[in-house]
Amino acid sequence: MKKIINDPKTVVAESLRGLAAAHADVLRVADDPAIVVRVDAPVASRVAVISGGGSGHEPLHGGFVGQGMLTAAVPGAVFTSPTPDAVEAAVKAATTGDAGALLIVKNYTGDVLNFETAAELAAAEGLDVRSVVIDDDVAVKDSTYTAGRRGVGGTVLLEKITGAAAERGDSLDAVETLARKVIGQVRSIGAALTAPTVPHAGEPSFDLAEDEIEFGIGIHGEPGIERTAVVTADELVARMVEAVVTDLPFAEGDKVLLFTNSMGGTPLVELYLAHGIAERLLAERGIVVERRLVGPYITSLEMQGMSLTLLKLDDELTELWDAPVNTPALRWGV
Amino acid sequence: MKKIINDPKTVVAESLRGLAAAHADVLRVADDPAIVVRVDAPVASRVAVISGGGSGHEPLHGGFVGQGMLTAAVPGAVFTSPTPDAVEAAVKAATTGDAGALLIVKNYTGDVLNFETAAELAAAEGLDVRSVVIDDDVAVKDSTYTAGRRGVGGTVLLEKITGAAAERGDSLDAVETLARKVIGQVRSIGAALTAPTVPHAGEPSFDLAEDEIEFGIGIHGEPGIERTAVVTADELVARMVEAVVTDLPFAEGDKVLLFTNSMGGTPLVELYLAHGIAERLLAERGIVVERRLVGPYITSLEMQGMSLTLLKLDDELTELWDAPVNTPALRWGV
Repeated sequence: MKKIINDPKTVVAESLRGLAAAHADVLRVADDPAIVVRVDAPVASRVAVISGGGSGHEPLHGGFVGQGMLTAAVPGAVFTSPTPDAVEAAVKAATTGDAGALLIVKNYTGDVLNFETAAELAAAEGLDVRSVVIDDDVAVKDSTYTAGRRGVGGTVLLEKITGAAAERGDSLDAVETLARKVIGQVRSIGAALTAPTVPHAGEPSFDLAEDEIEFGIGIHGEPGIERTAVVTADELVARMVEAVVTDLPFAEGDKVLLFTNSMGGTPLVELYLAHGIAERLLAERGIVVERRLVGPYITSLEMQGMSLTLLKLDDELTELWDAPVNTPALRWGV
Repeated sequence: MKKIINDPKTVVAESLRGLAAAHADVLRVADDPAIVVRVDAPVASRVAVISGGGSGHEPLHGGFVGQGMLTAAVPGAVFTSPTPDAVEAAVKAATTGDAGALLIVKNYTGDVLNFETAAELAAAEGLDVRSVVIDDDVAVKDSTYTAGRRGVGGTVLLEKITGAAAERGDSLDAVETLARKVIGQVRSIGAALTAPTVPHAGEPSFDLAEDEIEFGIGIHGEPGIERTAVVTADELVARMVEAVVTDLPFAEGDKVLLFTNSMGGTPLVELYLAHGIAERLLAERGIVVERRLVGPYITSLEMQGMSLTLLKLDDELTELWDAPVNTPALRWGV
């Protein structure tokens, strides 16, 4: 294993130190338990939007803390759910208590349990905490760490849109309703060309032959729908578009946000190539791409691969997507 | 070789199609020769800032085309200099002719020759075209594709700062003088953990054993100062900081921009860890980090590794760095 680290045990803590140093104008980092909090939080009467999960998916979630997006993020160890006390600490740091907090939970068994426990602990202290579980991955029903569908790329869009709603002063009821709406109309699928190596494991998470790809992979390298021979980008993207479009389904005339995501190790030259194919295939179906996001935003360490996410837009969602955001990884309008 | 491509021969053209589709509000792409041009160019009386080089370093350069940064970019084939006619086409597309154009050339023999020829062709048509050559890599004096030092991470900062000057209406003389000032006070060094695979080559550019890193690597995987055993992040970053700081040299009390760059395949969790170490080491030397950039901005396909760049700041450079920018890869203030 070759990585730019000192010790597998301190990777996340040391990385957070770098995040804090680089973005002190936007966020702060607390240790023990490790949480990332927007620099001006808590703000009275503003709903806190909080997410978290195992590390190794950066910039998700810490890179999305800031104005117009997350109020706080809770990073666990690499590919490991954060503990309930860490989530509870984030809730307390992110809200004054009057407006409450929305927890965005990716559908992994550990995350769901620990965020639920944290919500109960916070509720016992009189805080109004709601949770939504995102499960946008159309690949498989159940998986290694999941009952039901996994939460993947749609999480990024959900965090942006709910964060914008909280920023403009929406109530917790409204932000929760909005979150459920986004979850209802976002779908994703991923594919991997290589496996990631978790620092404390020291070797690749799975074996993939030199001529194989894994279609429908999860963001921890969980098995997908099938292993298949390497195919052309045209074939790969066509299969991904088909899987996502037919699931919701997205229909002719629908306005969408197309999110073409790198799993980390795929170069931008390939990612934009894939994005161009997806744009063409959606146009052929009469699906109107009105907004785009292209880049490595929800990753699996250095895994090579990509995912496609489609979100059905309406005027409200488009306005919230376009609203100003100032985070380490997404920034516009400020 | 596993890549998300259709055919090594069409990778760049297809990728540019995706770039154009994703960012039609910011840039346009012309084919044959392939160039990327800011959507509103040419603008009368505004200096054009143009750069280019081999593809495979994305987002450099096409991802930096837009308001407040590059007017045009000229992407060659992967790791291959663009032709003089392509550079000339970019000059013609980017300027109305009254304000002239500045060419930012990374110091590689092919780039220097082809940009020089293009400048002569454009001058013969009455256009005022100046060139600056950036050579910020402190690693080696001469290298595989270079006489003298290579142009690396400093290029990103140079493009941002000169683009901001052109945007505010500076003359070609002023933008050229500014560019030479930036080149004079920026220094970089890189290190690689793995080798990239060029699509048309089909195999890794060099061999690096499982326990080796290459210190002082170029952005095409050119040899560095030495191959060394894998070291801790603390040791690696300390060596990089030492090499960069002692070269200019940067002195106690200097205000700097610290740019911690991923070569493409290094995950953000590692990159921020390295950034945190660099911040600490600079603070120990009394060097004041006033601005930061952390992420994959000048890459070598999927190569794992990183580079550090330091730019000595003054009020003028800081103001130009902070000025609004709206490109696919860097965006703030708009």
